[in-house]
Amino acid sequence: MVIIFKPKASKKEIDHILEKLKELKLEPKVSQGIERTVIGVIGDEAKLRTQPLEVYPGVEKVIAVQEPYKMVSKEFHNKPSEIKLGKNIVVGGKKIVVMAGPCTIESKERLMYLAKHVKKKGAKFLRGGAYKPRTSPYDFQGLGEEGLKYLAQAKKATGLLVVTEMMDVRDLPLFEKYADVIQIGARNMQNYNLLKEVGKSKKPVLLKRGMANTIKDFLMAAEYIYSQGNHQVMLCERGIRTFETSTRFTLDIGSIPVLKEKTHLPVIIDPSHAAGKRAYVSAISRAAIAAGADGIIVEVHDKPEEAVCDGPQALLPKMYDELMVELKSIAQALGRDL
Amino acid sequence: MVIIFKPKASKKEIDHILEKLKELKLEPKVSQGIERTVIGVIGDEAKLRTQPLEVYPGVEKVIAVQEPYKMVSKEFHNKPSEIKLGKNIVVGGKKIVVMAGPCTIESKERLMYLAKHVKKKGAKFLRGGAYKPRTSPYDFQGLGEEGLKYLAQAKKATGLLVVTEMMDVRDLPLFEKYADVIQIGARNMQNYNLLKEVGKSKKPVLLKRGMANTIKDFLMAAEYIYSQGNHQVMLCERGIRTFETSTRFTLDIGSIPVLKEKTHLPVIIDPSHAAGKRAYVSAISRAAIAAGADGIIVEVHDKPEEAVCDGPQALLPKMYDELMVELKSIAQALGRDL
Amino acid sequence: MVIIFKPKASKKEIDHILEKLKELKLEPKVSQGIERTVIGVIGDEAKLRTQPLEVYPGVEKVIAVQEPYKMVSKEFHNKPSEIKLGKNIVVGGKKIVVMAGPCTIESKERLMYLAKHVKKKGAKFLRGGAYKPRTSPYDFQGLGEEGLKYLAQAKKATGLLVVTEMMDVRDLPLFEKYADVIQIGARNMQNYNLLKEVGKSKKPVLLKRGMANTIKDFLMAAEYIYSQGNHQVMLCERGIRTFETSTRFTLDIGSIPVLKEKTHLPVIIDPSHAAGKRAYVSAISRAAIAAGADGIIVEVHDKPEEAVCDGPQALLPKMYDELMVELKSIAQALGRDL
Amino acid sequence: MVIIFKPKASKKEIDHILEKLKELKLEPKVSQGIERTVIGVIGDEAKLRTQPLEVYPGVEKVIAVQEPYKMVSKEFHNKPSEIKLGKNIVVGGKKIVVMAGPCTIESKERLMYLAKHVKKKGAKFLRGGAYKPRTSPYDFQGLGEEGLKYLAQAKKATGLLVVTEMMDVRDLPLFEKYADVIQIGARNMQNYNLLKEVGKSKKPVLLKRGMANTIKDFLMAAEYIYSQGNHQVMLCERGIRTFETSTRFTLDIGSIPVLKEKTHLPVIIDPSHAAGKRAYVSAISRAAIAAGADGIIVEVHDKPEEAVCDGPQALLPKMYDELMVELKSIAQALGRDL
Repeated sequence: MVIIFKPKASKKEIDHILEKLKELKLEPKVSQGIERTVIGVIGDEAKLRTQPLEVYPGVEKVIAVQEPYKMVSKEFHNKPSEIKLGKNIVVGGKKIVVMAGPCTIESKERLMYLAKHVKKKGAKFLRGGAYKPRTSPYDFQGLGEEGLKYLAQAKKATGLLVVTEMMDVRDLPLFEKYADVIQIGARNMQNYNLLKEVGKSKKPVLLKRGMANTIKDFLMAAEYIYSQGNHQVMLCERGIRTFETSTRFTLDIGSIPVLKEKTHLPVIIDPSHAAGKRAYVSAISRAAIAAGADGIIVEVHDKPEEAVCDGPQALLPKMYDELMVELKSIAQALGRDL
Repeated sequence: MVIIFKPKASKKEIDHILEKLKELKLEPKVSQGIERTVIGVIGDEAKLRTQPLEVYPGVEKVIAVQEPYKMVSKEFHNKPSEIKLGKNIVVGGKKIVVMAGPCTIESKERLMYLAKHVKKKGAKFLRGGAYKPRTSPYDFQGLGEEGLKYLAQAKKATGLLVVTEMMDVRDLPLFEKYADVIQIGARNMQNYNLLKEVGKSKKPVLLKRGMANTIKDFLMAAEYIYSQGNHQVMLCERGIRTFETSTRFTLDIGSIPVLKEKTHLPVIIDPSHAAGKRAYVSAISRAAIAAGADGIIVEVHDKPEEAVCDGPQALLPKMYDELMVELKSIAQALGRDL
Repeated sequence: MVIIFKPKASKKEIDHILEKLKELKLEPKVSQGIERTVIGVIGDEAKLRTQPLEVYPGVEKVIAVQEPYKMVSKEFHNKPSEIKLGKNIVVGGKKIVVMAGPCTIESKERLMYLAKHVKKKGAKFLRGGAYKPRTSPYDFQGLGEEGLKYLAQAKKATGLLVVTEMMDVRDLPLFEKYADVIQIGARNMQNYNLLKEVGKSKKPVLLKRGMANTIKDFLMAAEYIYSQGNHQVMLCERGIRTFETSTRFTLDIGSIPVLKEKTHLPVIIDPSHAAGKRAYVSAISRAAIAAGADGIIVEVHDKPEEAVCDGPQALLPKMYDELMVELKSIAQALGRDL
Repeated sequence: MVIIFKPKASKKEIDHILEKLKELKLEPKVSQGIERTVIGVIGDEAKLRTQPLEVYPGVEKVIAVQEPYKMVSKEFHNKPSEIKLGKNIVVGGKKIVVMAGPCTIESKERLMYLAKHVKKKGAKFLRGGAYKPRTSPYDFQGLGEEGLKYLAQAKKATGLLVVTEMMDVRDLPLFEKYADVIQIGARNMQNYNLLKEVGKSKKPVLLKRGMANTIKDFLMAAEYIYSQGNHQVMLCERGIRTFETSTRFTLDIGSIPVLKEKTHLPVIIDPSHAAGKRAYVSAISRAAIAAGADGIIVEVHDKPEEAVCDGPQALLPKMYDELMVELKSIAQALGRDL
């Protein structure tokens, strides 16, 4: 922690801070500048984080030297975390992973059809929502447990693992029963009670970044889950909100190298919600893999005209097939594989 | 709904849409332009909202003519809603209302002291968090039910009404017991299960705008509560996330006239979270009242150095007192009062 | 300047920086923390600003303690600057000032009519563009010098001072002849050659904030003008670009107290471009004055249907008249006047 | 154009618009809905664009059906434009192009050294600023004409083409003499007089997107140049301003497929300014090529410690070399080449 005083801070004001530091058993290093005084603090910064030092008289600003997240940081664990599921599937390893399926589960038949299709071309996970966070109360809210059952059936038929969104703390038992990976949606990234709840579970979690959240906020949300004991956390960037409206959100492609520098957790990209329009999904997916993402989670639908949700952004099966070929080439060009 | 076709849409593609509209018993008005065809649709737009018309071949874009929210709109109820609490308190009436208190409840003594202070200068509501959404899992998470009890005691001592944040669907019985107004925080604005839960309650709700949510999203969230039967919804703008970092968030002052045009619900402003720094809170509060807000919810603390949360943005009691005088003058200058 | 090293920075890397500081005759204060080393630097920070210290091996980040602007800061000149024009007009004094008129000069008759109208209710300046920065090359680009002549005639007839936008470095002689205040538009806030050019002029400058510029960028742009010798700079906040689209831009109301804290220059608000819709202009104007702005620059048009530019955001004369009454009341409620 | 009326618009208000359309020789198609009236307008939309229809009484909103740009659109020219320079260099063709060099020209020796280095590994263009738009008036402003001469010498020695930024309308003759491609910087993207000036030149232009400009604004700026007769325009995305601060700007990766859909002009990506930190530059560059960009413009410096500008974001020569190998592999994986 570095404490910067105002140009006219009095000796009394500076001494006041020095006493506070002494109380906390922290060691101050005072730099008496020409215009102002600066104190560098030695010791555990966490002790200071709960002290509102900015409000002390004479203080201009206080700067953290350490990042506020601990366990999800590279400093805590300096190799990439590999999350192993089932026999052969690893998220965060050499092979990139593809999670694919419809936005929402609409019927058993369609889900089964799509599951078989995406599996054939390389997907390892089936995505599909049974509980949907819809902007309007008048929109279809999902099939609920029935949808989870269809997922289980599709898993049985194809061997795909199931990733699906949980929105309510009361639903954990259901998700522990039916899901392989519990997805926390962007709108719930700072629903801290939900994070704590899945943090107590043994199921891997796919945590989506909130649309207005910084990378620091994102890692703090992951820390909520990780610090409860659940270390199988995958991060998912899905676009942030900006002034640009040609795409639904703006995919933060730079977040991939930033996350790879700061955390050991695997990084998955959701190109579908970022794009909002199917014509843009493949380009964003290729970019994600080229930038170093560990996988994508993508929407696919054979009859988007009939989709109850987000039809415009779902890839047609044929587009999905072509994309898988491109992703494999890019992965191989960079020493990975699909 | 207006459906705009691509310049080269075929007759077959246009007929396909016309059939779909017929099926839904909607009447099309076709405009055959020089470059492209446009269809205006007559009838209940809600029927179309669940149809992904953009994905039909030949369609370029689809534009909604009606807003997606219904019950919270001015068209549904064209006079301002007044929310009456207790004998003499009205939110959304001629008098502006002030909600004040600490960010977090720290102790019974401090809460009592602050409650008495803010009451004396004009506040009608005591604010204070017992359950806190903290960015870090290592920060103080609130006193929980004990905090709610202190609020009830402060209410008894002062007559102030209690407004406090609920974060978990399982806590509703507690809040129905202790709170006069249930606050839904910005981070939970799209936690739809929470919205539905308070929508079933009889308690008034103060709904904060999410930091990345448009005014339309905000009104849709209010519609979630309202459509469940709880019509006592107050909207609270508290700053949106932008690139500017001098303030913690950017208060969207323009949202006040926009909301006043579009909805009948009262509008409260939270200057504290927007500012992030106490020196800026009074100016933003004055602006809010001058722009037509129905009240403010503001943080006050007598020893911000000891605050466990958000100390830098709390007004000192003396600053609060001066602000109350200014707000009263501005309210009166505009034909209202405090 | 505070230099923070990476946890594993070597002694050699730290010594490398210490030598560099010695070379520059700056005094280092080393804090050897448990996890990392921090150096506080004493002396003129400007010497270091051109040194890319972040790129030295072992350095994690470098934090400026001083602000990069000098002459426009409160530390340089700690009383508000008053800009005196003509006999009785002061920008930045006790009285707030109103600048009003059409977006674009369309004809002599209309300009004259509007000038007389706005003057009668309290405006001291006539605004109107003769050279217009239009998004489309096919839109009307302004009357050019002819427009400037009409402004001069309206000034002669009414006594209003003239504020009008200059876009091209080659036009300075024309503006020195016809304008009382030269406006630099938002799109040119970082057109540094234009800033330098008006910096050499004796004419006061109204500098608009760019739509994506921070307050720091804004003050640096003002520093460009001020440091060339032109000290008559007025700052104008006109809305920043955010994700919200109900208004054309998001007026940064918090920038008013921030600027009042950091600079001695007067602050003017443009509610018209921020709102984009006339129904919202008055509320934003009232907010600006309540927050402490020194004036507004507002668009007024008697026949917005016929306006060649920005008709939707121009106040009708009657709305303007009502607004002047409200602004006067608010100014007086806060100890100022109109 | 589609004109949507308010629910309570009167017959007189609607007739008023119908007359206006008749005057302009445009054909209206009236849709009388249950709640409101909608008019679709047939004919040349450009006639209406200068009519402020939104301000007519009774009108709620007006929606453009056509895009406001013409000549840069795919509808105007439906094959990708290839810009040919010299004998063998094509921008926008099958081969991706690399433009590389220092941010600012510092000395002849360094420029020569870097030019030779970047050429060897595949660059076709040498970048380097002689006139620099610096945020602070106290920072180095560039070598001016001397810098342009060094570029010419480096070109002679290596055969690289020269791309360099022009900031002032008065400098065109100098740039016509020394540059092969004139760069318009992000801060000048809406400096319309500068756009018109280079629009009259025969030199190809690299137009950078402004940090707060939408893709539509960007294409309108390109239209300014194109419509003046200069058809050799390359678009350059370099990151937009958002709330995220881990990177200097947020590269809008989705803009690549969007631009490829809407315009025939080539698209170049600047990963250096978007990243702001060299560790992130390669990942963003790979993403750009994978998403379909026609090339990159990247900063390289052998001694970033000594760079006078933007040292932290320059690739070291070794990193540049590795990146060229990766980009070639990705290009080939997608059927292109470097």
